[in-house]
Amino acid sequence: MLGARPRPRLAFGTSPQGGIVPGERVLPEEVAVALTFNGSTQAVMMATPDDLEDFAYGFALTEGLARPDEIESLEVVETPKGLDVQLWVAEAAEARLKERRRVMAGPVGCGLCGIDSLEQAMREMAPLPHGGYRLTPTQIMAAVAALPGQQALHDLTRSAHCAGFWDGTRMVAAREDVGRHNALDKLVGALVSGRMGNIAHPAKGAVVLTSRVSIDLVQKVAALGAPVLIAVSSPTADAVDLADQLGLTLIAQARPERFEAFTHTDRIETEQSHVR
Amino acid sequence: MLGARPRPRLAFGTSPQGGIVPGERVLPEEVAVALTFNGSTQAVMMATPDDLEDFAYGFALTEGLARPDEIESLEVVETPKGLDVQLWVAEAAEARLKERRRVMAGPVGCGLCGIDSLEQAMREMAPLPHGGYRLTPTQIMAAVAALPGQQALHDLTRSAHCAGFWDGTRMVAAREDVGRHNALDKLVGALVSGRMGNIAHPAKGAVVLTSRVSIDLVQKVAALGAPVLIAVSSPTADAVDLADQLGLTLIAQARPERFEAFTHTDRIETEQSHVR
Repeated sequence: MLGARPRPRLAFGTSPQGGIVPGERVLPEEVAVALTFNGSTQAVMMATPDDLEDFAYGFALTEGLARPDEIESLEVVETPKGLDVQLWVAEAAEARLKERRRVMAGPVGCGLCGIDSLEQAMREMAPLPHGGYRLTPTQIMAAVAALPGQQALHDLTRSAHCAGFWDGTRMVAAREDVGRHNALDKLVGALVSGRMGNIAHPAKGAVVLTSRVSIDLVQKVAALGAPVLIAVSSPTADAVDLADQLGLTLIAQARPERFEAFTHTDRIETEQSHVR
Repeated sequence: MLGARPRPRLAFGTSPQGGIVPGERVLPEEVAVALTFNGSTQAVMMATPDDLEDFAYGFALTEGLARPDEIESLEVVETPKGLDVQLWVAEAAEARLKERRRVMAGPVGCGLCGIDSLEQAMREMAPLPHGGYRLTPTQIMAAVAALPGQQALHDLTRSAHCAGFWDGTRMVAAREDVGRHNALDKLVGALVSGRMGNIAHPAKGAVVLTSRVSIDLVQKVAALGAPVLIAVSSPTADAVDLADQLGLTLIAQARPERFEAFTHTDRIETEQSHVR
């Protein structure tokens, strides 16, 4: 069951007579989801309660808390106040977590969590390796064209974000959430947890997002190790600058028939030079 | 100067020939903004660096940190790492802040900040008073129609959120930000700080948002004391339930010619009963 439920509503002005029409609209759910590592709550996010195992794996990786191989077990527990994802992690991860615990917290639609000083706001990250993966304009536009088939929650509610991973030929995985950061973390978890098998190598493809691109989304894609980010909407100016620094190819305003490339455009193999 | 700057980009597929067109796009800025109360940093948000005084007043009120009359002075200080809004608040507010400081932090596009347990995720709030303010469907649709004239940053970038306050006749104030929560906090600050004079009583009008409505936006509007929230996009199912509990009239999917009302529809005065 997708994380959505109907709510009654009165529609005004939409009938030919401009009258008031009772009915309902299916809306995405937004619940408090705690991530608890070795018994201590590290973060609470407002999220759509689907694919929470993927969410936990993804959030742990993109926020630098625990790598997939450090997660020893994971269980989603229903509590009266919300859902608690209880992870048990290896000792090395536990030490990192203790350091972060004091300053970590997080809400819906956000990824830059638990920052309590300007010094912490911009975390240091290693740039992505140059070269290697390339894709053609045709492949980029095909990635965007493939999104609609992956958005079951959006089809129901018209108000959920989607994050997918495109391997050049097909969307190997996609995840949805009312929050754009959560959708990305769920996708990352689907790719790295091994729960679906080794479906794709993060360095050999592009992350595709329905949303705008803020700094924290660039950080999360770089933490996954994906070399290309394709977004339907616009980036912030500062997200462009960070993508440039981190060696990420940032593509935005992407549609099935056009797109704009802001950084590291050498990963786009123009059709002229494309060996057929 | 609005918080935006151009970034170079290559446009693919948009020319009649499908070629590659160099150019630039103006994008909103997203910078780290610290809020420092009596010398201690309470939160760091990623925000568009406009109207930061309003932002500080609004965030302080909607997060329950300090009322406008408790803010004794405020200064925006540029630092190498970002902007620091330094507030000095009265003793009573200082005591509340100390309690919250341990768990408070925040990012772009988020309002439910600094929550470190499921118990804290849903803060207790007093419901809005019943009765009093009402508005007609015509006034609601006029509020949405008035938005475009208020969105200078969006006009430049096509990617900023706007929050406005509609007094039934006109948009008395509007503020923009790359984050929807920040836009709302800036609007709240514009209304309550007294910096623009007493432009409107929050209980006598509606907040108008370009964005989707999550739980935290409902909480912020209730903290302002506005009885009606009009949003262009959809709410979450849980935001609807919270608006119902808090006595807020939640209107969404609002356009100049139609809208949907989800809660407390008694504040909508149907034209039939409207005394002309």
